[in-house]
Amino acid sequence: MNILICNDDGIHAPGLQALVTEIRKIAQVHVVAPSREMSAVGHAITMSDPLRAEEFYKDGEFFGWAVDGTPADCVKLALFALLDKRPDMVISGINQGSNTGINIIYSGTVSAATEGRINGLPSFAISLTSYQNKNFTPAAHFAVKMAQHLISFELPPGIFFNVNVPALPEEEIKGVKLARQGMANYEELFHRRTDPKGRVYFWLDGERGVEENDPNIDERAVKAGFISVTPVHYDLTHYPTLTKLQGQVERLM
Amino acid sequence: MNILICNDDGIHAPGLQALVTEIRKIAQVHVVAPSREMSAVGHAITMSDPLRAEEFYKDGEFFGWAVDGTPADCVKLALFALLDKRPDMVISGINQGSNTGINIIYSGTVSAATEGRINGLPSFAISLTSYQNKNFTPAAHFAVKMAQHLISFELPPGIFFNVNVPALPEEEIKGVKLARQGMANYEELFHRRTDPKGRVYFWLDGERGVEENDPNIDERAVKAGFISVTPVHYDLTHYPTLTKLQGQVERLM
Repeated sequence: MNILICNDDGIHAPGLQALVTEIRKIAQVHVVAPSREMSAVGHAITMSDPLRAEEFYKDGEFFGWAVDGTPADCVKLALFALLDKRPDMVISGINQGSNTGINIIYSGTVSAATEGRINGLPSFAISLTSYQNKNFTPAAHFAVKMAQHLISFELPPGIFFNVNVPALPEEEIKGVKLARQGMANYEELFHRRTDPKGRVYFWLDGERGVEENDPNIDERAVKAGFISVTPVHYDLTHYPTLTKLQGQVERLM
Repeated sequence: MNILICNDDGIHAPGLQALVTEIRKIAQVHVVAPSREMSAVGHAITMSDPLRAEEFYKDGEFFGWAVDGTPADCVKLALFALLDKRPDMVISGINQGSNTGINIIYSGTVSAATEGRINGLPSFAISLTSYQNKNFTPAAHFAVKMAQHLISFELPPGIFFNVNVPALPEEEIKGVKLARQGMANYEELFHRRTDPKGRVYFWLDGERGVEENDPNIDERAVKAGFISVTPVHYDLTHYPTLTKLQGQVERLM
């Protein structure tokens, strides 16, 4: 098996290293990752600037390609320019911090998996739901299981997975739970400040989440100590509304 | 009616001006737009840098706020920091160039409308499907009709619209068509070049689209001379797969 690994925390990130270490035990790994942290770039692609890809060495050995672009750029560039051979799968992560709920639409980690699936490859994104805890091993172990499961699994086109692993010692993780994306809204907080020249600027501060009670959402599953696995897709069409509005919108002109 | 207008081509863009001119005839308009072009930033948000918002004047009059961030940043900042009053609707556009098919996941124009809808407001994104044609008037006229329709329309939470207007004289537009998002894949082309210092870089060139034959997809509707209106949402969960996999994924640990 040939697996392309990408992330959005950058090629230096410990979560990427942990994933590579484990996946190397079951597959040939190709790393193509951003040269620096790209969190919250969403599904951005670089169109107006050139992209650089530099060989990146670790402990004297070739580790992968460092690209000065977004996670989506990395996957595109890997598939269409850098790799000699098409990989069998794309894994994105392990992200430091959760990718659950509405936030997944901003997620660079998820976007790399999206890009893999757009190009026909089985793929998943995997995140450790803590910004502090550096123990990526339980998540890396689960990534191996997901990869082994996915490779023999016939998935419909356009569908891939978003995985979130709670920041717990492996023996304390309660199990795996299929979960839907949470849809709770966030209230954004901005700090208004003035710079030394008297100009106003704003900092986006933490968000105040609204609690959702459904135990089947990703965030709740993780908080209850489970690994959440959400099947996701990139067809944004809302089909029930498409059906419901037939004959109405057409009259607008 | 109070309408927030945003875009991703930037506050100087003629498509934004055309939209503002027409919408001002039916509503009080508040413009909060990127200070420069932000195409293909996807649904990015700025978390690690401060955001600046400067008052932007046109012909001696206050036109709106120019923000050095992404379209999603603009909507967040408008709602939570800049505007005195919550608007009744968010319109994003008029974008120069189509936002159809898989490409909408990269679209800054669509992301501003997403952000509006996340925050509970009716919203739509509107694009003129040409990179050359500067006649935004037909699209601006349709935006007025959409806005008037939407304000009295009870939409389920999380659903908004993506509109694409063909680059035709108004009298040649054949009508409005409800359409689903196209799902055709693209083959990316990268040019490999060497800079004056001998370092390799890549340019993303045009994409080679695969044709989809379904007449009900956005791109086909537009090519047939119709305005396409696609109801979209941001719940990426694929529910049929969620149901189908129950009991399987849970066994992975």
